[in-house]
Amino acid sequence: MTPGDSLRRLRETKPLVHQITNYVVMNETANATLALGALPVMAHAREEAGEMARLAGAVVLNIGTLSPAWVEAMIAAGQAANETGAPVVLDPVGVGATTYRTETAKRILDEVDVAVLRGNAGEVATLVGVAAEVRGVESIGAASEPADLAREAARQLGVVASVTGPVDHVSDGDRTVAVANGHPLLASITGTGCMSTAMTGCFLAVNRDRPLDAAAEALVAFGVAGEDAAVGARGPGSFHVALYDALAALDPDTLDGRARTS
Amino acid sequence: MTPGDSLRRLRETKPLVHQITNYVVMNETANATLALGALPVMAHAREEAGEMARLAGAVVLNIGTLSPAWVEAMIAAGQAANETGAPVVLDPVGVGATTYRTETAKRILDEVDVAVLRGNAGEVATLVGVAAEVRGVESIGAASEPADLAREAARQLGVVASVTGPVDHVSDGDRTVAVANGHPLLASITGTGCMSTAMTGCFLAVNRDRPLDAAAEALVAFGVAGEDAAVGARGPGSFHVALYDALAALDPDTLDGRARTS
Amino acid sequence: MTPGDSLRRLRETKPLVHQITNYVVMNETANATLALGALPVMAHAREEAGEMARLAGAVVLNIGTLSPAWVEAMIAAGQAANETGAPVVLDPVGVGATTYRTETAKRILDEVDVAVLRGNAGEVATLVGVAAEVRGVESIGAASEPADLAREAARQLGVVASVTGPVDHVSDGDRTVAVANGHPLLASITGTGCMSTAMTGCFLAVNRDRPLDAAAEALVAFGVAGEDAAVGARGPGSFHVALYDALAALDPDTLDGRARTS
Repeated sequence: MTPGDSLRRLRETKPLVHQITNYVVMNETANATLALGALPVMAHAREEAGEMARLAGAVVLNIGTLSPAWVEAMIAAGQAANETGAPVVLDPVGVGATTYRTETAKRILDEVDVAVLRGNAGEVATLVGVAAEVRGVESIGAASEPADLAREAARQLGVVASVTGPVDHVSDGDRTVAVANGHPLLASITGTGCMSTAMTGCFLAVNRDRPLDAAAEALVAFGVAGEDAAVGARGPGSFHVALYDALAALDPDTLDGRARTS
Repeated sequence: MTPGDSLRRLRETKPLVHQITNYVVMNETANATLALGALPVMAHAREEAGEMARLAGAVVLNIGTLSPAWVEAMIAAGQAANETGAPVVLDPVGVGATTYRTETAKRILDEVDVAVLRGNAGEVATLVGVAAEVRGVESIGAASEPADLAREAARQLGVVASVTGPVDHVSDGDRTVAVANGHPLLASITGTGCMSTAMTGCFLAVNRDRPLDAAAEALVAFGVAGEDAAVGARGPGSFHVALYDALAALDPDTLDGRARTS
Repeated sequence: MTPGDSLRRLRETKPLVHQITNYVVMNETANATLALGALPVMAHAREEAGEMARLAGAVVLNIGTLSPAWVEAMIAAGQAANETGAPVVLDPVGVGATTYRTETAKRILDEVDVAVLRGNAGEVATLVGVAAEVRGVESIGAASEPADLAREAARQLGVVASVTGPVDHVSDGDRTVAVANGHPLLASITGTGCMSTAMTGCFLAVNRDRPLDAAAEALVAFGVAGEDAAVGARGPGSFHVALYDALAALDPDTLDGRARTS
């Protein structure tokens, strides 16, 4: 399996990716999921979160705008996915900024079997107790090298850690993959981190047994789309629009040749 | 009255269309409503939903991301609209996917006098007990022909049923109109179904006594805008942007000639 | 300090602007904040709103889609900002349309020290008891001249009043500034009022001691971006996209020369 193989399979099988995510990016991650070729579904009520998760090929939990009822729904959805075997991705948005976010992310990691943790360096560092600077939901930096941080997070938390930044690092604690695809304009709009988490869910849905590779492949695909979208962009608005066009235009036949992994 | 006449009246009177809709598409349906020429207002608190609905020319209820408090607000808004005579449109997003959605849609249909039910084939089939396949919020198909389904839903549920798909079918149980306007790119972005429901609310607001025609005219207008937006679109992102431009540019004088109804 | 100076300082210091705003525009105001050069953060849970506000350079409260739990969070965030000295902006969206909105805006003004009140003429008129017509969240008009209205609101409510419209008027009760920048297309998309409130928060974050000037400078910057975005726009969709490009492209060196203030 390669990024191109996974993308091809994803478009053939159109997995349902259940997302309990934040209000800011809900439209954006749904549209990115559709553009990539999977089917998004958003459902956060405790009355249905578990039932919806049981239908899904993967579940995405994102704490960007959390509240108590949503946290309960995230845990219910995550546990339902654990029962069916659908992989769960967690995006600990803003962890470190407030106690509530930090405690919620830790609680989800404790009560749900999370396949992939996708965050920026500051967020992941907070969760493994490494010094980091977080401003709101932006990571300013962490005290350790990102590859080391990803490896440490994977070992300590028992997940595949996907630490994104100028170069992304994905680790299962044993093997670590660096992904250098992407473009600085991705940092100019809100929600691209959340979109990369959603893309991770999509790739996991067709790669249950390969979470490390799926997480890296998702970042390759999303990064390549970002590179394509940057061509001709006049700023963050036109880049944002072009990103969906580029995700839909991703070509499984050329994707592997464009991967910048090491 | 024709689609062009209705659009002209809508732009002259700028009806207020109160929408209690899902988080994913709230910005999108508000902007589509504005682009068409009506005034959107979103208000979901039980403390104000009924009062806001009393000010509206039509009320749109959409269960795409529901929760108990929102369901109560939808019913309060729907019943307030029933009192003033403002038509109510219901979009039963994802009905059939979870028990909670199915029960909520049925409860709204039971407690509110719904003028138009706008859904895809799988959703409408679920509500009338016809076998259907729904994946998350996507309809994969229903066991009966869409025209038959629309007619059956209208008769059984006492509504105008507006069943959208590659060709849309709108029925009051007696007369059935097929609308063939639209473009495949409409299925490439999230929320176009929800937008068509909002457009239905806009057309109903200026056509209280003609719900069947208003529902069909809304689909003509939205479909024509989709056709125009597809010209020059490079993918789902640029199509999405062009859709608002196209809605705003809809010309009442040429709209009727472009209707593909039968 | 001039608009250009403020923009330069904002991009150098990248203040964190905590926004508790409505569902319809959350993505839009976050992206506008980022495009301008500040850092947005959205957090509405009562469990963290105060803690997040303490990290912020300014706090934006917007009641566009309110509910009781959010109102409590707004007050907690506003009071926390009052303790740290971070300025608070209030956008009383739809005040006058329902009792709940009117009472909530008055309660926030009563319990939080609001630096700037940013609204349309109908909303601000409602809060000072001047006759006004509001349709949903749209202002149709107020009985007094907007400059008089801004001055009266500032005096009566003890805030800087920023009344936007075809020409904006900002007053501290003593001095009143008119801002004539902007473009009619800004009224064609939802959330541009909310964006101008967010921009006000950004400019306040770097101008704690000059709320009147900061509020006027924000409207100059946003208006100039609107003027730039209108060039080549084919309708509300393409204008909306170009608005983010234009905000990011605002040039501190030329901004002052383009201000149309009096």
